[in-house]
Amino acid sequence: MSWPKTIAILGTGAVGSYYGAKLALSGRDVRFLARSDLGVLRAEGLRVVDGKTSLHLFPVSAYASPESLGACDLVLISVKATANAALPTLLPPLLGSKTVIMTLQNGLGNEEFLSAHFPKHRIFGGLCFVCLNRVAKGVVEHYGYGKLAIAEFHPRKPCLETTLQSMWQEAGIPCEVSPSLAEARWRKLLWNIPFNGLSIASGGLTVDRILQSPALRREALALMNELIVVAEKLEIGFEPGLPEKLIADTEKMGSYHPSSLLDWMNGRDVEVEAIFHEPLRQARKAGMEPARLAMLFALLESVCASR
Amino acid sequence: MSWPKTIAILGTGAVGSYYGAKLALSGRDVRFLARSDLGVLRAEGLRVVDGKTSLHLFPVSAYASPESLGACDLVLISVKATANAALPTLLPPLLGSKTVIMTLQNGLGNEEFLSAHFPKHRIFGGLCFVCLNRVAKGVVEHYGYGKLAIAEFHPRKPCLETTLQSMWQEAGIPCEVSPSLAEARWRKLLWNIPFNGLSIASGGLTVDRILQSPALRREALALMNELIVVAEKLEIGFEPGLPEKLIADTEKMGSYHPSSLLDWMNGRDVEVEAIFHEPLRQARKAGMEPARLAMLFALLESVCASR
Repeated sequence: MSWPKTIAILGTGAVGSYYGAKLALSGRDVRFLARSDLGVLRAEGLRVVDGKTSLHLFPVSAYASPESLGACDLVLISVKATANAALPTLLPPLLGSKTVIMTLQNGLGNEEFLSAHFPKHRIFGGLCFVCLNRVAKGVVEHYGYGKLAIAEFHPRKPCLETTLQSMWQEAGIPCEVSPSLAEARWRKLLWNIPFNGLSIASGGLTVDRILQSPALRREALALMNELIVVAEKLEIGFEPGLPEKLIADTEKMGSYHPSSLLDWMNGRDVEVEAIFHEPLRQARKAGMEPARLAMLFALLESVCASR
Repeated sequence: MSWPKTIAILGTGAVGSYYGAKLALSGRDVRFLARSDLGVLRAEGLRVVDGKTSLHLFPVSAYASPESLGACDLVLISVKATANAALPTLLPPLLGSKTVIMTLQNGLGNEEFLSAHFPKHRIFGGLCFVCLNRVAKGVVEHYGYGKLAIAEFHPRKPCLETTLQSMWQEAGIPCEVSPSLAEARWRKLLWNIPFNGLSIASGGLTVDRILQSPALRREALALMNELIVVAEKLEIGFEPGLPEKLIADTEKMGSYHPSSLLDWMNGRDVEVEAIFHEPLRQARKAGMEPARLAMLFALLESVCASR
């Protein structure tokens, strides 16, 4: 087995469980840092339910502390961005001198945060275009999609993208190398901002019900177009017709709950800062005022704080 | 006593109770159409609490049906715009051949509705710049302000504005004649759209808490400026510095609940159509796309429907 031989998964929510299980089932030494789910993972393993089929990873290498997990070749960050403050404490035991860090988190600012705290390590972003929900400890439902888009934060030589792409592809995960991390992040925001945002601010609508409301559907599209104008100002271009394609892709998701909606419904912290505030801040820094994003952020900040 | 000698009040919420009580206490023959509050109004009268002072109107001419109330010189409409569909049934018994109708309702479209159903009658708008809450049947709390701005929908001769202005002033209500009804309506929307809208969409914040949130305060101001641009396109101009003045006025309101917030909190219909949708429709008809209003409307339509 080629590099990376050992992989740490930091965060056993939907994303960490799904991608970690796929990598482990492809033969990698994948070690999960668990919390309250430690007992369940050790006793029952990790299950990925995909329609009528189900993958079962057992045994799971689950650890209670980063010290017991130890240093790995690759660390995948799959905690929510709202938990970033814990990373400077959690990460060091997982890092050898050449450990590569890849964040699978949403929003903007995560690579900057990691780079500031771990400047000697190569930092990659991995954008997950996937519909997942963790429905119980050790159980993830996969509703569709799954592709990753990866890019290095500050590209260095030798280029590692192809090696990382192979790792994902061997695990059955479609993976493309993005022309730039910023492009990949904004591409993902083009979906997350409208659908994660409107699902909460509308009072709890799933994506199908957002699309069924003519006014909300129009706002989802208008938000995407607003973000594309911001991205252009940041020298990020997208192919024509992307908003319409994203709407069509979303139509296929049925009554999907975006991850932020589930967080909000369950009283957990919502990634308002990473998904909404930091993009708004970057737009304003570039002299833009995306009005719909500004309104949505202001409302979400209040609605999510009051939970 | 000069014209109008008899006044019907249609709707005994905060606005109808307050303005009706003031007119009755000034000596007019004011007749309230009551519903579930009929017994309380007859037995205990109508109380307006204003800080440490309290006005008490007793007895109250309260009626159970428009037929028993009878035709009046002036009909004041103070039901919510969401109840407009009932007006074509409720109004006719109150109308003599020369009865004037004045709507004290919020939002846009009310005079159009009345004019379409009662084309032979003169229709006035009366915009209430006042902080009121009805806290119980027969009890209204007055927190500040109170001024009316009045204008006729389709101005006719002889001019009635001065007579109506005198009626209000004799009742202790400051009243100004607006240069146009559209100007008065949009002036009121400049406050209602941000504060009624953000108070609900933020999850239930009173006006002081909206102003304490830097992001929401900014959105309130940005909404006002967006609406001023729409109004300009409709050839309605406002004095410079109006948004800042409205914010300063709102600072003095303390923890005031806008009427729509109370409606929403109590599971009643919210005037989304009149306060948000119709202004948005008029803006779009004029070729404008007020992005913040569009976002706010789409969210409110969903949030208020799900109550």
